Amino acid sequence: VIDVFQGDLHKAGMKPLTFVRQVLAACVYPPLINSSNLPLDARQRTQEELGRCVGGSVGEGNVCGLMTWKKMKMLVVQDPQGGAEKTHRTQLSLLCDNYYFCGFGPWLRTQALLNREASPRTGVLIPVPCHNKTVLSIMQLGAVAVPYYLSEEQGWALQVEELQRALESAKGVCNPVALYIINPGNPAGIYSSQCGDQVIRFAWEKRLFLLVDEVYQDCVYGENCEFVSYKRTLSEMGPPFSGTVELASFHSVSKSFSGEYVCGLRAGYVELVNLDPAVMKYIHTLFSKDSCETVLGQIALDLMMDPPKPGDPSYLLYKQEIEQIRTVLVHNVKRVHEVVNSLPGFSCSPIEGGLFAFPRLHLTPKAIQKAKVTAEMQEDPDTFYCTRLLEEGGVFTGPGWEYGQKEGTYHIRFCIAVPQDVMEELLRRLSSFHMTFMKDFS
Amino acid sequence: VIDVFQGDLHKAGMKPLTFVRQVLAACVYPPLINSSNLPLDARQRTQEELGRCVGGSVGEGNVCGLMTWKKMKMLVVQDPQGGAEKTHRTQLSLLCDNYYFCGFGPWLRTQALLNREASPRTGVLIPVPCHNKTVLSIMQLGAVAVPYYLSEEQGWALQVEELQRALESAKGVCNPVALYIINPGNPAGIYSSQCGDQVIRFAWEKRLFLLVDEVYQDCVYGENCEFVSYKRTLSEMGPPFSGTVELASFHSVSKSFSGEYVCGLRAGYVELVNLDPAVMKYIHTLFSKDSCETVLGQIALDLMMDPPKPGDPSYLLYKQEIEQIRTVLVHNVKRVHEVVNSLPGFSCSPIEGGLFAFPRLHLTPKAIQKAKVTAEMQEDPDTFYCTRLLEEGGVFTGPGWEYGQKEGTYHIRFCIAVPQDVMEELLRRLSSFHMTFMKDFS
Repeated sequence: VIDVFQGDLHKAGMKPLTFVRQVLAACVYPPLINSSNLPLDARQRTQEELGRCVGGSVGEGNVCGLMTWKKMKMLVVQDPQGGAEKTHRTQLSLLCDNYYFCGFGPWLRTQALLNREASPRTGVLIPVPCHNKTVLSIMQLGAVAVPYYLSEEQGWALQVEELQRALESAKGVCNPVALYIINPGNPAGIYSSQCGDQVIRFAWEKRLFLLVDEVYQDCVYGENCEFVSYKRTLSEMGPPFSGTVELASFHSVSKSFSGEYVCGLRAGYVELVNLDPAVMKYIHTLFSKDSCETVLGQIALDLMMDPPKPGDPSYLLYKQEIEQIRTVLVHNVKRVHEVVNSLPGFSCSPIEGGLFAFPRLHLTPKAIQKAKVTAEMQEDPDTFYCTRLLEEGGVFTGPGWEYGQKEGTYHIRFCIAVPQDVMEELLRRLSSFHMTFMKDFS
Repeated sequence: VIDVFQGDLHKAGMKPLTFVRQVLAACVYPPLINSSNLPLDARQRTQEELGRCVGGSVGEGNVCGLMTWKKMKMLVVQDPQGGAEKTHRTQLSLLCDNYYFCGFGPWLRTQALLNREASPRTGVLIPVPCHNKTVLSIMQLGAVAVPYYLSEEQGWALQVEELQRALESAKGVCNPVALYIINPGNPAGIYSSQCGDQVIRFAWEKRLFLLVDEVYQDCVYGENCEFVSYKRTLSEMGPPFSGTVELASFHSVSKSFSGEYVCGLRAGYVELVNLDPAVMKYIHTLFSKDSCETVLGQIALDLMMDPPKPGDPSYLLYKQEIEQIRTVLVHNVKRVHEVVNSLPGFSCSPIEGGLFAFPRLHLTPKAIQKAKVTAEMQEDPDTFYCTRLLEEGGVFTGPGWEYGQKEGTYHIRFCIAVPQDVMEELLRRLSSFHMTFMKDFS
């Protein structure tokens, strides 16, 4: 079985980044600092990282991001995306634990904003499709997820009119305070920074807090296409927006291209812009209480933000490994688009970013009917498709309803981060299964 | 400054366990498997651990304890504490993430039990003293923490009459459903298994769910004193208790003696006994959604539960390192008791287990008065003492009120897990400061 249900490069056979692994290994077992098997910069970097650890050990005492706090702040300021700092507005980089994993990330993201006792209840606008754990987390916090639909017809575009419609739909139901954006998208591979200024203007008008999930920022596939963060767009828009729109931008080593999804270490950070200092104080308490990264996670985060530089012994290999992954992803995106669109009853918008394909199934009435009568409980037609694809085609994908979709539409989601030969085999199996399926239910 | 505010062996200068670090390092950077620098069993163990990882890599795909689930279950069954399994009752070992850290542990522990909407509210009996994050977590879940006081006069004994009093105090306030026990204690170094059968009988009578925090199970100091888990006591009591009392026992690699507090990896597990299968199903969903360990944490957990055996190349060094730590702790416990009890206005119950001392300060009225007028805000007298001890004596400890104490009593808490020479210096500073302090406020 080819398992592309979730996004995990290593599981799919992609190779970890040598430099990152060398430094982490030596941090765990410091005698390796003297090993001639490791390049000089990996050994030096290990010493630097351990030097920041109290007791010189990656023990449990280094909590809440204290260790790399100063350096993180410095790196964020130096970051080309860090334009907003130049205006010296209230902001802070906070490190958070377990970021974007198993629903804990969304929980962190929204907890600070949500007053469980509020009446009417607090609302958060979320995209559809979107990871279902986001919705669950919002519900668990006693808030209401207000869906806005990305336009599949327009390549999953985020449209301001739709945000407006969603906001109005919340009237009498809840009090929307925040707008959640995934950029680049998951599962819809949209890259929504392109309309960032319109979205920011909308948030400004409606006084919505922008929660921007930018963990796939390394994965943007368009030619000459550069990732632009919402924070940067906000900064470049100038007053009155740049000084007033509240924004939280999330990034994570678990999802980072250069962080190579290391070790399930799940370290991440959130940058907060334009928050009231009183709220910042509360958030800091909240993060200090509930979230703390593993020390190795903090080190991985540091390696992600401050990788080998030209001239360093590890630079060439590092760059080569990153380029290899990128080449594979760009190739896969192209192939998925080609093959899926060549099949009857199957279509795929161009994938601009992220790690997933979310193609649409145009199921026949017969297939839909069959799904509903076959299973013990009535089954979603796309679950029916995915189950058969797994059983008959040997490919493990996720049904669209788990991520949300317009009623009457059906999708599947799968990860594109697999080696090229695995992707070819996947597409071969998918095509073959799909043709049979469509014939069986024509 | 000697920082003994928290319990962190590495920070305090204790050395990590070589075997554990070797395996973890090689798991991170697998080429080390071929390195002659590592002993054969560490290399073999690495291969075994990586063999359990999907894709042979410690990537992020191995979530929710799936990887070591089977082995964990097997190890728990083989455990001498594992008596309860022999009766084939409903139970399951669940792996949870971030266990017992920054308040997230207590959150996990109680979330499954608590119905936020309940009226009257759900109550949990908790010991005083106890970590304040436990109380915060219970409050955050919308429940009520019902304090029961450990008897300092009886060496911090857990007394059933006091449990009874606490239960009655909850009448009209909340509906107590659970009894939380820390065994061995933190910060009170009591080892409450000794009265386990009485506590279990009480829980049975009152239909209370037992939540037993047994993370310090490796730290029991009495001569010929063996740790006995509540689960084992429950099993040995036989019917009707053994088949009905619901029990959750928590253990963690972060706090384990043999796990040597590795890496801030914070992996832990909870064993659940006698739970209704319907509740188990709910708990499993809950854990699957919110908790997942880092893969390295899972590996560390595996190493903790299945360390080198006699005959293995690493066995002698491993045993030696463990014994060294144990010797230091036993020595420190003895010295703290001797020195503190030799000082006027200071007393310490025998420390039977855990990693902390929680001696009592018998402050003079003058010192208490001074504390209340000196600070900007009225200060707790033990905070006043701790602040001066930090500033004048160079020792960082925690004031008793943070952990709860009977009104009118004052304490400080400090970690005893420091090298012997550091402990001697700590006791020298503490004695010298204390004598001056008592003289100044006599």
